[in-house]
Amino acid sequence: MTALTNQSKVGAGRTIISVDAMGGDQGAATVIAGIYASARRNSEVGFILHGPKDELERLVAKRKGLAERCEIRHAPEIVTMRDKPSHVVRHGRNTSMWSALDSVRNGEATVCVSCGNTGALMLMSVIRLRKLPGISRPAIAVMWPSQNPQKHNIMLDGGADIRADAKDLMQYALMGASYARNGYGLARPRIGLLNVGTEEHKGRAELKGAHDLIAANAESADYEFVGFVEGRDLPGTRCDVIVTDGFTGNVALKTGEGIAKLISDLLREAFQYSPLSRLASLLAYTSLARLKRRVDPSRANGGVFLGLNGTVVKSHGAADATGVSSAIKLAFELAQSNFSAKLAARVASAASLDQDAGIEKQSDGETE
Amino acid sequence: MTALTNQSKVGAGRTIISVDAMGGDQGAATVIAGIYASARRNSEVGFILHGPKDELERLVAKRKGLAERCEIRHAPEIVTMRDKPSHVVRHGRNTSMWSALDSVRNGEATVCVSCGNTGALMLMSVIRLRKLPGISRPAIAVMWPSQNPQKHNIMLDGGADIRADAKDLMQYALMGASYARNGYGLARPRIGLLNVGTEEHKGRAELKGAHDLIAANAESADYEFVGFVEGRDLPGTRCDVIVTDGFTGNVALKTGEGIAKLISDLLREAFQYSPLSRLASLLAYTSLARLKRRVDPSRANGGVFLGLNGTVVKSHGAADATGVSSAIKLAFELAQSNFSAKLAARVASAASLDQDAGIEKQSDGETE
Repeated sequence: MTALTNQSKVGAGRTIISVDAMGGDQGAATVIAGIYASARRNSEVGFILHGPKDELERLVAKRKGLAERCEIRHAPEIVTMRDKPSHVVRHGRNTSMWSALDSVRNGEATVCVSCGNTGALMLMSVIRLRKLPGISRPAIAVMWPSQNPQKHNIMLDGGADIRADAKDLMQYALMGASYARNGYGLARPRIGLLNVGTEEHKGRAELKGAHDLIAANAESADYEFVGFVEGRDLPGTRCDVIVTDGFTGNVALKTGEGIAKLISDLLREAFQYSPLSRLASLLAYTSLARLKRRVDPSRANGGVFLGLNGTVVKSHGAADATGVSSAIKLAFELAQSNFSAKLAARVASAASLDQDAGIEKQSDGETE
Repeated sequence: MTALTNQSKVGAGRTIISVDAMGGDQGAATVIAGIYASARRNSEVGFILHGPKDELERLVAKRKGLAERCEIRHAPEIVTMRDKPSHVVRHGRNTSMWSALDSVRNGEATVCVSCGNTGALMLMSVIRLRKLPGISRPAIAVMWPSQNPQKHNIMLDGGADIRADAKDLMQYALMGASYARNGYGLARPRIGLLNVGTEEHKGRAELKGAHDLIAANAESADYEFVGFVEGRDLPGTRCDVIVTDGFTGNVALKTGEGIAKLISDLLREAFQYSPLSRLASLLAYTSLARLKRRVDPSRANGGVFLGLNGTVVKSHGAADATGVSSAIKLAFELAQSNFSAKLAARVASAASLDQDAGIEKQSDGETE
């Protein structure tokens, strides 16, 4: 299986991304602005856009040359941020989210992008795309700003499931390593397991089990296991991928957002304090803008659902056009590197290993 | 029981704090500098200092007037940061940490301050001071910077125990409310329970149980329960006290430290970037220094052990004299408000309520 191209009128050698044009806080115009920015920068990307046909056609027509790169699929309904996931999966057949996932389900695209309601998108993804054989809990991989060369660390699970046992955590390590390789070009990603201390005797029982499983798979799955890491390593340089359960991951993610916001608010106050500090903020404007881009969530905006038949990139609900465009860029890179198929092969080989020989090390011959 | 005064030669109407002078990364000189700063600002505080007698006498003699405010207790050994807690409690009888806790145990002080090894201090505190009747897991209350009027939020447990069931979490709420009242002067603290979403149906089973228990105790224990809160509320303004288990709390705390450090590093880089930005950093120096103080961990430096017969203030291991002095200030306020006795009464009345009538609401007549 290779990246899907030439499958529709927008094909012509292009890599196709399925895009849910509705459901973000900013509306379809922002999504269209984002894909337009991507289309202008990258001639190899094409889109299948899902949403109300008339509205999308009107928005696409405003952007020069975009119509030839987009195929529009009519979906009259929208999943809102307030909709309950369980309701949406029962009654959401006519939504743009459902339609966008179905383009991955039926093989027209391997990666889907949506800004919509995370809970609904996750549940609908599991039901429409199904879990990969051998995966019991899919995970959301999220990005942290860091001073590593790739400028971001990957953490999973960011909140798909509040539980994870030792085997789930081991699968998160496999999926995270595969994602780091295909999304960030890291040949041998460094994996850390989140705990309250780095000593091996510390932490919950499932963490000790996961520690042994992740260590045992390091060679065959071609990653480096750095052992237990702590909260401060999420934005740190000790590893590239941090594995944790979705409860802890989600709390950490929102804590990081909260502290970044507090510091940003206090910094703004500090620069308003006196005429001198107001002058300083003018002089430092460019440097501060660069810093803001570095830690801005809309730049590191792709939460990625892993462990399904196909890959779903969840863009932030409040994403602006820049945020949408960076989610598209990530989706394109994953689609082009044939990530969905490679991840499936990786998980399948680990699952068969697991059946054959427990956690015994052996090379699986995958050329991921 | 009232705050202990007039118990020793340093008494004379003063409130006595027991201080472990050893065990911090900076050595005894820094601790002495910190208590000297406190002594000069506050004529009502006196100290029992624990450590090697000759060294402490020499250091105290260098500070004018300090000798009359300090009683020195000889303890020849030191608990280092590398010592294992289990080893220390078996072999640590001659350490300054043990001696400092024994001044609380034998009633010479109600609050002890130490910069030492957290794990050893916690385990030794549990063994020497014993848990309050009705408390199964003591907790560490830690401070988050926030924009609330008191400038800090309280979170517990910050890492005393990686487990907590619904009843433990309810006791954390009682202890946190009592601490907020006595340490921060909040008449009716707002309590939040940390979860991955604010909806009542979300989260782990023990969190749903804790939600009901904390809600049921709100009236009798005189706090406001705001329900589930998220990671971003730790440094936020939705509540004053955030309750969570020690695993999640510790990860959140270290994540917050990590993000604050990353932003501080990137900010420093941003200000070095060009001659203009270097000039800007000079102009904004005072404002930025004020911001740094606001989020500086050495200012919000008291992790406080709650749920024991007596109160232990754990100062940061790397604390400078300012950090030690702010830990002393907190210890003094807690000792003067008779916090240890009030907390014990609060927990005892909740425990008896629990035996008598489950979670039935009733006023317990405490004037905490």
